Amino acid sequence: MRFLVSGHLEYTVAFPSTLILNIHAQRNSGQTILDEKFEVTPYVKFEEFVLENASSRFVRLETGKKKALTIDYHATVECTHEVISASKLDFTPVAEMDRKAIPYLFPSRYCQSDRLGRLAWDLFGKIPNPYEKVIAIVDWIHANVEYLRGSTNSETSAYDTVTQRTGVCRDFAHLGISLCRALNIPSRYFSGYAYHLQPPDFHACFESYIGGRWLVFDATRLAPLNGLVRIGTGRDAADAAVASCFGRVELVSMQVDCQLAPDQKFTPLERKQLGRKGISLEAHSNVTPTN
Amino acid sequence: MRFLVSGHLEYTVAFPSTLILNIHAQRNSGQTILDEKFEVTPYVKFEEFVLENASSRFVRLETGKKKALTIDYHATVECTHEVISASKLDFTPVAEMDRKAIPYLFPSRYCQSDRLGRLAWDLFGKIPNPYEKVIAIVDWIHANVEYLRGSTNSETSAYDTVTQRTGVCRDFAHLGISLCRALNIPSRYFSGYAYHLQPPDFHACFESYIGGRWLVFDATRLAPLNGLVRIGTGRDAADAAVASCFGRVELVSMQVDCQLAPDQKFTPLERKQLGRKGISLEAHSNVTPTN
Amino acid sequence: MRFLVSGHLEYTVAFPSTLILNIHAQRNSGQTILDEKFEVTPYVKFEEFVLENASSRFVRLETGKKKALTIDYHATVECTHEVISASKLDFTPVAEMDRKAIPYLFPSRYCQSDRLGRLAWDLFGKIPNPYEKVIAIVDWIHANVEYLRGSTNSETSAYDTVTQRTGVCRDFAHLGISLCRALNIPSRYFSGYAYHLQPPDFHACFESYIGGRWLVFDATRLAPLNGLVRIGTGRDAADAAVASCFGRVELVSMQVDCQLAPDQKFTPLERKQLGRKGISLEAHSNVTPTN
Amino acid sequence: MRFLVSGHLEYTVAFPSTLILNIHAQRNSGQTILDEKFEVTPYVKFEEFVLENASSRFVRLETGKKKALTIDYHATVECTHEVISASKLDFTPVAEMDRKAIPYLFPSRYCQSDRLGRLAWDLFGKIPNPYEKVIAIVDWIHANVEYLRGSTNSETSAYDTVTQRTGVCRDFAHLGISLCRALNIPSRYFSGYAYHLQPPDFHACFESYIGGRWLVFDATRLAPLNGLVRIGTGRDAADAAVASCFGRVELVSMQVDCQLAPDQKFTPLERKQLGRKGISLEAHSNVTPTN
Repeated sequence: MRFLVSGHLEYTVAFPSTLILNIHAQRNSGQTILDEKFEVTPYVKFEEFVLENASSRFVRLETGKKKALTIDYHATVECTHEVISASKLDFTPVAEMDRKAIPYLFPSRYCQSDRLGRLAWDLFGKIPNPYEKVIAIVDWIHANVEYLRGSTNSETSAYDTVTQRTGVCRDFAHLGISLCRALNIPSRYFSGYAYHLQPPDFHACFESYIGGRWLVFDATRLAPLNGLVRIGTGRDAADAAVASCFGRVELVSMQVDCQLAPDQKFTPLERKQLGRKGISLEAHSNVTPTN
Repeated sequence: MRFLVSGHLEYTVAFPSTLILNIHAQRNSGQTILDEKFEVTPYVKFEEFVLENASSRFVRLETGKKKALTIDYHATVECTHEVISASKLDFTPVAEMDRKAIPYLFPSRYCQSDRLGRLAWDLFGKIPNPYEKVIAIVDWIHANVEYLRGSTNSETSAYDTVTQRTGVCRDFAHLGISLCRALNIPSRYFSGYAYHLQPPDFHACFESYIGGRWLVFDATRLAPLNGLVRIGTGRDAADAAVASCFGRVELVSMQVDCQLAPDQKFTPLERKQLGRKGISLEAHSNVTPTN
Repeated sequence: MRFLVSGHLEYTVAFPSTLILNIHAQRNSGQTILDEKFEVTPYVKFEEFVLENASSRFVRLETGKKKALTIDYHATVECTHEVISASKLDFTPVAEMDRKAIPYLFPSRYCQSDRLGRLAWDLFGKIPNPYEKVIAIVDWIHANVEYLRGSTNSETSAYDTVTQRTGVCRDFAHLGISLCRALNIPSRYFSGYAYHLQPPDFHACFESYIGGRWLVFDATRLAPLNGLVRIGTGRDAADAAVASCFGRVELVSMQVDCQLAPDQKFTPLERKQLGRKGISLEAHSNVTPTN
Repeated sequence: MRFLVSGHLEYTVAFPSTLILNIHAQRNSGQTILDEKFEVTPYVKFEEFVLENASSRFVRLETGKKKALTIDYHATVECTHEVISASKLDFTPVAEMDRKAIPYLFPSRYCQSDRLGRLAWDLFGKIPNPYEKVIAIVDWIHANVEYLRGSTNSETSAYDTVTQRTGVCRDFAHLGISLCRALNIPSRYFSGYAYHLQPPDFHACFESYIGGRWLVFDATRLAPLNGLVRIGTGRDAADAAVASCFGRVELVSMQVDCQLAPDQKFTPLERKQLGRKGISLEAHSNVTPTN
């Protein structure tokens, strides 16, 4: 599936500052960047880098004495996904888990899985299959947390959301991650562009490691899972902020877009189409795609 | 400086479980392992691994049906350190920072630097030199937080400690890390063996990235900084737990030891000997050691 | 029903301190004190008082230079209760509520009803009858929170318990109070002696104001509701602590007892015997007792 | 000193609701109401009442099917105050304290004095005189917390403010109350009209019980202490909300005013004029006024 994604961010700058942006589509086994363009107007020096433990692409830029900056990013991204039947999604005991998944078992800033342990076991502990567990978690969040713009802020964590029961996509993701980790299922934050998301914006959901694969889940049900273009992968939103500002910079406007490339056809895969099948956005040579 | 370190841990096992231990001394530019021995009695299968983004050495082991397990680790470690004069320790703007340091600017489970921003700026924001800032933070913690065994637990975070004003080494480290990150100084958790620590135990302190170097700081002042043997490096204690248990396992006894090798002489370098000099436990080819 | 209650508390005193104790059985419309004895050994000056807005009886005593103090309280208390059929327990709108009940609508130290509003409405908001609402709350707490001695401390509040899902009687009471207040049902803390409580101890539960009456509820189900002898009434445990110490005093041992008077017969009324009936421990001239 | 105070509140009503308002000036030993008028337009039934343990005057009103309601309150209030020299303001040990002050020693919803104990003792414990202690607390809050409209919400408590270091008048009051209670100085919330407050609004500060008197303190320094007209007295803002709504009602506009009566002269008494003197807004027959 080929998507045209774009982000347009306008900043005013109070004094010379540094910005670290994370709006580039990732290059990874599940998505290929066919073309892309990143522009800062007026031009300032910037540098792209990738952190070792993930493929998230960051841009670090110095505002210098500019009073305002506009960031434009456009890319054409070819995305693949695999639909995997639940029967192949056995629990991977910690003893056999890919080492790279292990850090995603531990609590993080917004995902205090250590404090949600008993709740997670009470609600979902008896479900034997790990995939069914995560599906139950995602459905429970969807049923019990209301998507309410403005109800949370940058300090809100899963420990709050589980009681407050409102939030936006990042809060839904944090709660899902936390409940999964509490049940020893490695889980990580996913930020990206999302086709069909209304209103258009950056989106967040999460991935859980089951049967040797990272499967993607979205408790908000606001976008089809096969319409996601990955930007960030991390422990939680602290790792995948759209922008981290060092100095004093203010976002004055933002437009985000995700369109299907002209010649493409799209059949949405959401919770209800998938049923008991999982979807992975990473390629995996050892697993035969189904569907 | 050569140290003989050891850890002896006895566990009872309720049912087959997996343990991830992090008690091996690291191999890195600042310390060399001359010999080591890791033993599980009775023998069970185990595997050592290193996570990509740090050099922490983990052991994953399966208890199987054993009812009790004893872990023994012994190592002889050659440690180096550099003492660096404050004049070489300029602030590294985010724009020039080694990319690997960037994740240590972000908040984490026990270090909610995002919630301590105003406090950090009020207390330390006016100190121009970053090294002086961290020294002021460490002295402030030492003066205002009481070391009190049993006053905190595994859920206690820097946000609690800053008001509660009691804690153990890990709480001191978390608070130091949080205040530094709030001031845009990358900081990370350090766990290790510590010479002269009384009573002997695993120890925790922290490192801040200043002038292109990771300098070590210890707000507890319980052990000389040149008597530390590194085990874990991470964002906070969530990354560097001595043991993470998946299943049901109980620690029934633990002995930790750190001795000077027979032929060695040791001159402790603590806060007061160092004065305005910093100490790094990593080698760095571009910096000429002083003192 | 006549009960013999007693409390025996032994304190050591580090330096001259003041203690405020709340272990006297209340005198109120639902219970009469037939005889009682309060003794401090060695003798020190003390004073009994009642706070205006409740009938809780406090004793304030000064330790002076005594190094140890023993407190003994014994009383014979005649208790009455009324069993009221649910059909008489209509919702009292705030507009018609006894003014004295109004403060028990507001959040308090351990009962942050303002933070549990959405959760309470989601879980129980659709139940039309207020008595049924409280019964559903109490049953939910019983089903979802585990009674676990030592799992909480004096700082634990309902906001913690709702996620942590463990606690002791005071935590069960705080959570019940909070959920009720969130639904506009005035609710207050009840501390007392409890017949059949094992092991014997002071007990805590709560009362909700429904249909013009204060009905008693106990989510722990550890003692029959008609075996309670009231000590304290308040917003939460902050109002009804067994002992508040000003200075430095340590409780070294405590025995609490509640026995049936020799000639009495007792038929326990617990959740299952009561079914859809409520129980009030206060007399009320306008309501005809049933059962 | 005679003040003309007024409040004008406009509400829209989604469905029949009950409002409890607390905007009437109190009648007490320190202030006399010369005339007053309370009006609801269009007219609906309302009832005034006073809670036993305080003199706060509440109005309970039912909106019925009205779609909008306007509340108007006007009063002329004669206020007195006493300035008391610090030499008369000895510490009142708990053993000798007026019983009515005792509940104000305990923690409450927004004033978790039990969690701020060590901090309070570290910062202010060594100041021997209780009046000096409170002055030091108030000065510390003024120096360390920034008045920042919109930085807090109705859930913010002293435990947050002590670290967050921003807030509005109610947050300043809650923090002052909490630190005082932690030092065994009974303290209570004061809400009122305030002369010279800019922009005009309801105001909040606090009172501490010292030397047998309730003295008023205001860490915001936004209004002279002899220009306050008392509305509410309580443990914290939970007891003294301007409006508590049961149902669904929205405040769409509010004007508050406090003017000096035409013939009056006013000499502001603020922190700097008072120096080491205290000010009480209650009359007290046993204390000879000074100044």
